[in-house]
Amino acid sequence: MTRVGDTVRFACPPGVEAWAAVGGKKEADGPLAAGFDLLFTDNRLGEETWEQAESTLQRHCAELLLQKADVTLPQIDLALGGDLQSQCTATAYTFRGLDVPFAGVYGACSTMAETLALAGCLTAGGAARRVLAMTSSHFCAAERQFRTPLNYGGKRTPTAQWTATGAGACLVSGRARPGQVRLTAAAFGRVRDPSVKDGTNMGGAMAPAAAETLYRFFLDNRCAPADYDGVYTGDLGIVGSELLARLLEGEGVDLADRHRDCGLLLYDRETQQTGAGGSGAGCAASVLAAHILPALQTGKMRRVLLVCTGALMSTTTLLQGESIPCVAHLVELTAPVD
Amino acid sequence: MTRVGDTVRFACPPGVEAWAAVGGKKEADGPLAAGFDLLFTDNRLGEETWEQAESTLQRHCAELLLQKADVTLPQIDLALGGDLQSQCTATAYTFRGLDVPFAGVYGACSTMAETLALAGCLTAGGAARRVLAMTSSHFCAAERQFRTPLNYGGKRTPTAQWTATGAGACLVSGRARPGQVRLTAAAFGRVRDPSVKDGTNMGGAMAPAAAETLYRFFLDNRCAPADYDGVYTGDLGIVGSELLARLLEGEGVDLADRHRDCGLLLYDRETQQTGAGGSGAGCAASVLAAHILPALQTGKMRRVLLVCTGALMSTTTLLQGESIPCVAHLVELTAPVD
Repeated sequence: MTRVGDTVRFACPPGVEAWAAVGGKKEADGPLAAGFDLLFTDNRLGEETWEQAESTLQRHCAELLLQKADVTLPQIDLALGGDLQSQCTATAYTFRGLDVPFAGVYGACSTMAETLALAGCLTAGGAARRVLAMTSSHFCAAERQFRTPLNYGGKRTPTAQWTATGAGACLVSGRARPGQVRLTAAAFGRVRDPSVKDGTNMGGAMAPAAAETLYRFFLDNRCAPADYDGVYTGDLGIVGSELLARLLEGEGVDLADRHRDCGLLLYDRETQQTGAGGSGAGCAASVLAAHILPALQTGKMRRVLLVCTGALMSTTTLLQGESIPCVAHLVELTAPVD
Repeated sequence: MTRVGDTVRFACPPGVEAWAAVGGKKEADGPLAAGFDLLFTDNRLGEETWEQAESTLQRHCAELLLQKADVTLPQIDLALGGDLQSQCTATAYTFRGLDVPFAGVYGACSTMAETLALAGCLTAGGAARRVLAMTSSHFCAAERQFRTPLNYGGKRTPTAQWTATGAGACLVSGRARPGQVRLTAAAFGRVRDPSVKDGTNMGGAMAPAAAETLYRFFLDNRCAPADYDGVYTGDLGIVGSELLARLLEGEGVDLADRHRDCGLLLYDRETQQTGAGGSGAGCAASVLAAHILPALQTGKMRRVLLVCTGALMSTTTLLQGESIPCVAHLVELTAPVD
């Protein structure tokens, strides 16, 4: 492992052994549906509450992951996970039923990149042989917590994003074997707060954090967006994506045609009425597992960056008139070598 | 680094370069007051809200830590932190003002051991040269969020614990230098849920998680409580401490006179009316920095375990009739060698 600026580069890159994506009804109607391992048409998943339903999404996701990797729980040294529910409860309740050491992380919608970055550092460094990294979100649980209960029928502003009902999980192991997607670098972000106080404009709030992390990464590693097949953000939506391009352009970085946003890939905004695009910790996680990792595995893409952005406020701090601090974590993923 | 069971043992142990503890009014009246670096008699700390006051506690704690270590922010590769406020907001707002890569973690009252365990693994593995690990809690912010607003004047049950107003922080660096306290091992816990649904009996809920982590640690490492000068839990209070002793006794492990609980050390339960004892992510963190680390530094103790326990529910899940999933993370700390 070597550090250059904020980047940790793995000399012997950890491998992404397997992945799984589970989604709900809207995700099943979206353009990435075919990439999901499991889709539910009833977002309650047979549970009594939306909150329990989110844990059940995670449980299915973890079970599918273990099946696909042909790995049992005792072969996993550590699980890293988090979600948007207050006190990361979806994940905590999931791990009641998974007997494996568990460390909770919180980065809002940046959580997937955060767990992957940590998993990379921990496996490359030898603290764990195999790490399960998983995050999720549930539209109905998030609406109730962050905005208004669904029954209220609140109107959505055009800048508002649509919290994905989904979970994504990856199994990261010490050293990539031939044929495995490789986790080649990671960078933890710095908190940035552009003074946005509008909880329905997360994209605008988060774009500066994404710009900061990407700008530092390109500078530290002397590279540019053109060196990648895709620079994926998760999830800025249409508002944040446009702002990100402008912010980086101001720093002399041209994202050009390399930029994709997980929130804009998961849904068809026109026909699915998802406002400014998808969001939620489960959005980037499921797009990673349903779309990005398969494209790397099959060689359709050789090298990508995934930059997940998180808005770190709560409803309490917004009601108190505070602005929204944001962070963006990054991982670099590359196609398998023989 | 070697793994035995759930334990990561550091062949070249990271060092705890410096630490700092900041507390509020009740902490200033408690038996450990002299060990704190800074104590406030007004728990608002001049801020408009309790939530902001908690961030300000953290800011003072981080500033004191940097001063004591004679280190500047650019010399820190990563900060790990979390707190009890919904979405870990106290910490997120703190890091608006500290320009350093930041990864949020959530383990409720187990957060201090979780950040230290991660910091140990990351520095020992080479992913970071120096990691800042910090957690906090604030009585008034926690009461409002988890129980009832203070103004309501709710009666407390005898099993209820008192959330500490405090922050604790440590600076962990790659390889302990002579004279530095050493972080010699770490173990992440597994989620345990003994079906306690009473949000005012956290000690009872968390004791099985602490017992599980300790039992596995003693088994994996072929050691016993008698091998340590202190086995510190944070924070089981009187109810959980008694239960922990009974649970371990049932497994043939005699905690004997080695067990101390951070929640019982921070306050004088008789005169300070803190119910079953202190709790909160800031309790174990400040007791670690105000009491445990100084005793290791001066050689009063040679070797201790710190096992921080977290109750991973939320008010939503409790209102929905769910029980409380809990986790306990562990670090082993030893006195400096010359």
